[in-house]
Amino acid sequence: MGFTIGLDYGTNSARALVVDCSNGREIGTAVVEYPSGQQGVLLEATDHHLARQNPADYLFVLERAVRGAMDEAKHNEPGFSVRQVLGIGMDGTGSSPIPVNQNNVPLAFEEKFGGNLNAQCWLWKDHTGYAEAAEITEKAKQMRPQYLKKCGGTYSSEWFWSKLLHCKRTDPEVFNAAYSFVEYCDYIPAMLTGNTKPEKIIRGICAAGHKAMYCDEWNGLPDKEFLSALDPALADLRDRLYDKAVTSDQPAGKLTAEWAKKLGLKTGITVAVGAFDAHMGGVGAGIKEGTLVKILGTSTCDMMVMNADKKLADIPGVCGIVKGSILPGYYGIEAGQSAVGDIFLWFINHLVPSKYGKNQDQMFVELAKKAVKQKPGEHGLLALDWNNGNRTILVDARLSGLLLGQTLHTEAHEVYRALIEATAFGALTIIKRIEEYGVPVNEIINCGGLAVKNPLLMQIYADVTGRPMKISRSDQTCAVGAAIFGAVAAGAFKTVGEAQDAICGVRSKVYNPDQNAHKVYEELYSLYKTLHDAFGTAEWSGNLAHVMKKLIAIREKQRKS
Amino acid sequence: MGFTIGLDYGTNSARALVVDCSNGREIGTAVVEYPSGQQGVLLEATDHHLARQNPADYLFVLERAVRGAMDEAKHNEPGFSVRQVLGIGMDGTGSSPIPVNQNNVPLAFEEKFGGNLNAQCWLWKDHTGYAEAAEITEKAKQMRPQYLKKCGGTYSSEWFWSKLLHCKRTDPEVFNAAYSFVEYCDYIPAMLTGNTKPEKIIRGICAAGHKAMYCDEWNGLPDKEFLSALDPALADLRDRLYDKAVTSDQPAGKLTAEWAKKLGLKTGITVAVGAFDAHMGGVGAGIKEGTLVKILGTSTCDMMVMNADKKLADIPGVCGIVKGSILPGYYGIEAGQSAVGDIFLWFINHLVPSKYGKNQDQMFVELAKKAVKQKPGEHGLLALDWNNGNRTILVDARLSGLLLGQTLHTEAHEVYRALIEATAFGALTIIKRIEEYGVPVNEIINCGGLAVKNPLLMQIYADVTGRPMKISRSDQTCAVGAAIFGAVAAGAFKTVGEAQDAICGVRSKVYNPDQNAHKVYEELYSLYKTLHDAFGTAEWSGNLAHVMKKLIAIREKQRKS
Repeated sequence: MGFTIGLDYGTNSARALVVDCSNGREIGTAVVEYPSGQQGVLLEATDHHLARQNPADYLFVLERAVRGAMDEAKHNEPGFSVRQVLGIGMDGTGSSPIPVNQNNVPLAFEEKFGGNLNAQCWLWKDHTGYAEAAEITEKAKQMRPQYLKKCGGTYSSEWFWSKLLHCKRTDPEVFNAAYSFVEYCDYIPAMLTGNTKPEKIIRGICAAGHKAMYCDEWNGLPDKEFLSALDPALADLRDRLYDKAVTSDQPAGKLTAEWAKKLGLKTGITVAVGAFDAHMGGVGAGIKEGTLVKILGTSTCDMMVMNADKKLADIPGVCGIVKGSILPGYYGIEAGQSAVGDIFLWFINHLVPSKYGKNQDQMFVELAKKAVKQKPGEHGLLALDWNNGNRTILVDARLSGLLLGQTLHTEAHEVYRALIEATAFGALTIIKRIEEYGVPVNEIINCGGLAVKNPLLMQIYADVTGRPMKISRSDQTCAVGAAIFGAVAAGAFKTVGEAQDAICGVRSKVYNPDQNAHKVYEELYSLYKTLHDAFGTAEWSGNLAHVMKKLIAIREKQRKS
Repeated sequence: MGFTIGLDYGTNSARALVVDCSNGREIGTAVVEYPSGQQGVLLEATDHHLARQNPADYLFVLERAVRGAMDEAKHNEPGFSVRQVLGIGMDGTGSSPIPVNQNNVPLAFEEKFGGNLNAQCWLWKDHTGYAEAAEITEKAKQMRPQYLKKCGGTYSSEWFWSKLLHCKRTDPEVFNAAYSFVEYCDYIPAMLTGNTKPEKIIRGICAAGHKAMYCDEWNGLPDKEFLSALDPALADLRDRLYDKAVTSDQPAGKLTAEWAKKLGLKTGITVAVGAFDAHMGGVGAGIKEGTLVKILGTSTCDMMVMNADKKLADIPGVCGIVKGSILPGYYGIEAGQSAVGDIFLWFINHLVPSKYGKNQDQMFVELAKKAVKQKPGEHGLLALDWNNGNRTILVDARLSGLLLGQTLHTEAHEVYRALIEATAFGALTIIKRIEEYGVPVNEIINCGGLAVKNPLLMQIYADVTGRPMKISRSDQTCAVGAAIFGAVAAGAFKTVGEAQDAICGVRSKVYNPDQNAHKVYEELYSLYKTLHDAFGTAEWSGNLAHVMKKLIAIREKQRKS
């Protein structure tokens, strides 16, 4: 059948993956780190909200990753030839817009803006626009409440318009010099296919979707009246953005001779429209109706789809419902937890004593070795997983962590277990919310680093949710998803579903729930939910005097059992 | 004027101190550790509630400590002679009862009981009688509610009758073999003065007070009907206990020739009635009406007095109000926090990474060095100081710790500061409660290890309470208090107050509140009090959605200021 290449741009590095279209075999891969900043991120010591990326890095890693993956493929598969590569798909983080000039060149490449952080790519986790995000939310509430319903009720500082408005307010020189702004997952396909006019860039619906407030219901991007109310310059800019965004099964164009030479590929092969990493990860994991794909990393993305012919209600607190953002013809539902792996990393880096090991890896092993011996509730602890706020279902960045139940004997591995459990309770809260609004979760497929490396976490997730946890077969699910779109756009498959059938799979190891553990976790979850509602919602009213006592009672019961 | 000796028995060691009656100069001291158990405490691996002490240890350390202190005194003060020593006072921990036979000999010294932990001294922190404590509280609620009013509404597992009833229930052989039970702070003076009849032991009112439910209002110990309802054996025992308990300005008797020889002292000098360490610490720190003495150690005792001619209401949640327990003629008011230094030790031992130092001492120095640079609220954290329950004002052992506000950037020294602040908020809650019930706090004198060694903590206490924190001059305030009673009982002073005027003092360094810090802490305290009431009382009802947001707002304001 041929081969397809998936490009996956992460926060710190990018990878290329060569996939056999007939069976999903991964015959070559290469990972390249971004050369600039701290692990690829440009930071500002005086403002911890700021996170930018050098667009030149995207080009730097592209050539090296593709050539590395192709070299490995040739080495692994003696019969493999460059002529068998049919297409390329790509994903990146987002919303990560780049200001570009009239020729689609990033302002960062112009000498006058070279040292200016505002001329770089505004990375997804840049939060400098938090005040503008609040302003956009407020204005939308007054003028266009429908805009907010698609993004869980609150517009985020991580998203497109917050970043642009903040740029306009704080560095008008950059803003005014920008002919347009483009997500880097749209910029790279445009560049590979020789598109040098910003108006002609083919924009992916995934990035456009809720992050730029694009929706068919209101004919694309927010209207000029609304944008004007924020800033007339945004209304002007609208003309230089786009009217239409498309799904990633569509081609962005054909690979130019210049780039084919650089990458060691054949001129004219298809380049698919780009999308965000999590959405393509969902596809690479085999997402379909009824299947929840959880991408477990420093933060978590929870992806589901529902046939667009059906009626889907807005789900309060679920930040993204966009038609086509994951699978063409399906609503994409995106939820997530603001921090999961990041909470464990924070704990290890700041609060674990050296008796657990000399470095992160040793500490994780030793913490898990001790924590796995504990029964649910035996540590007597309960935590909230809000160290980085709560993305779903509270959509509130101004929340924080909580730990309770500690005594004079509480040990670090017990806190570690409580933190894992807190993230599991957070995951269950999302599942319950989605199901309440008519989207049943019949199967859960996990992918990402934690799914593969942390069996303790996977078992706790099974026990807390009472559902089996499956693991996606590939270690590089996002790149697999990108590769699938490359193949579909090139015409190797009629539909994405057909490509998934050929390429995706899960591992034989499934984490099944232990029913006794699940019963205890049901009691603990009801306490978690009480704290969740008490600290996280304005509606809750009640008393918490039972919480600590109930935890002690469960602890005593479990210690004796 | 002469000299007086104070003996101070702590949990892990005992000390003797030779004090000049004319000016409080401490001319000799010696500390001796108990030889048995783990740091002096007999433990049982299978029951972490159990904590006993070998009565033989009390005699072992006595001789060595007194001789050591006398040797040092002779060395420091060439003119000093044993003939100038007028009296001895002593304090110990409690309630710590010893089962004794008809000749006032601890059962532990009998061969048949030698290996039996129940025949040893039941140390104050033994909690094996927790179920019996609940039973006593319940029975008193039904039959004698007045008994509970003097001990804050809940009888503790640390106290006399809980321990005796638990002994009767679980080891009737020991209980039945015991002719009587005696607090070791009464046992040692009895032994030094040659008293070999349990009925004739002179009992201190301090230990008898709320810990054995002794009160003039109901003619001494609880009546037989009540004790019978718990267990008829307790009613029987009442006849072999005591009818009258007295203050420590009274002599227990005269030093026998045998003990004078062992200790290297003069036969016939006065030995004062014993009391608990915290109460004598209050006296040694210079307690008087309006002065709160805080003894800051692993846990905390807060002591006040009020002239017994005045009317003093029962103060809800304040565990001990006993006439004469601190100063003769005054109500003694005892409150406290179940864990203060213990919380910091727990944190250092279990949750501080090695980058803060290789051992406890280094870690405390480094944590403080970093924490002192922070402004109040800058860390965004809030904690409850309940890792070991709450003694005052909630009187509830089944509470636990809480920490909230942590982000992905929270560091160990920030948590350390938050834990110190939590104990300060707990301290302020006690002050407010006492003042609400008509006992004004005009001055605060601190003593104990934390007061001397932890300037960060002292400054935070001043800033949180908005009151100056003074430090008792002596490093050994409890032993000074014991020495004062030795001198008063021997007739060197007419009153304890007169002796305090001569002997007590505070250091020149006073921690004064910073008014800006105090204003921020007032805001934080109102959040602490909300959590305190929400988790600690059945009456509270409300919502907590403002708590995390308010902490973030304070954090942001403080970081910018």
